[in-house]
Amino acid sequence: MSTNDARVKRAEQVTWNEVKAGTATRTQVLLGPDDHMPNFAMRRFRMEAGGGMPLHTNAVEHEQYVLSGRAKVRIGGDVHEVHEGSVLYIPAGAPHSYEVIEAPFEFLCMVPNREDRIEIVDPSC
Amino acid sequence: MSTNDARVKRAEQVTWNEVKAGTATRTQVLLGPDDHMPNFAMRRFRMEAGGGMPLHTNAVEHEQYVLSGRAKVRIGGDVHEVHEGSVLYIPAGAPHSYEVIEAPFEFLCMVPNREDRIEIVDPSC
Repeated sequence: MSTNDARVKRAEQVTWNEVKAGTATRTQVLLGPDDHMPNFAMRRFRMEAGGGMPLHTNAVEHEQYVLSGRAKVRIGGDVHEVHEGSVLYIPAGAPHSYEVIEAPFEFLCMVPNREDRIEIVDPSC
Repeated sequence: MSTNDARVKRAEQVTWNEVKAGTATRTQVLLGPDDHMPNFAMRRFRMEAGGGMPLHTNAVEHEQYVLSGRAKVRIGGDVHEVHEGSVLYIPAGAPHSYEVIEAPFEFLCMVPNREDRIEIVDPSC
């Protein structure tokens, strides 16, 4: 450990990046490789009106917490309507998609320090 | 992976537990051992007026996101005032404390799947 490695920052000051696989979807790495996180990363996603992501898989699991807005999230064959205070665990390899109902839809998404690979299952949903 | 292992829940339905080392401080395990998380856990803390935690260390690092309220957080020799949207990384072994300024002070705290041990450094701060 080193106390000097501590980080305190404001989320709104972190750079946003477009998510190419999504629609009207941006993401920030709040704590990640640049901060030398030892085990996992914290990202924040924001999806605007009409936004979302098609059915896809990731090579790593997601632990998510919804901060604002409302969306339909499909995981495998189940569709969930989620909003502030919803907690989601999406296992590695599980097909999932997002469709915004009320924007902005914002959530935290934590992932382990392992290489991810996104694969689109169905571009239409 | 198994899509059947997915979890979707409401944070307010998860059991609260008192944090014995703290004052007016409760915590919930939103995603953790009971859900068989493969790499890390998500907890939520809530500190009421007059609440906080004395200077202590943990054996595991913390990645935190402030959801509501306001508090002074000391990490090593630095004191930070944090509120909604503040992001914190507290390295394993770094002495840290919390003092509520505006209640309820709520934050998410993610930790790796490793045994933790809390040690109080200074009960007075």
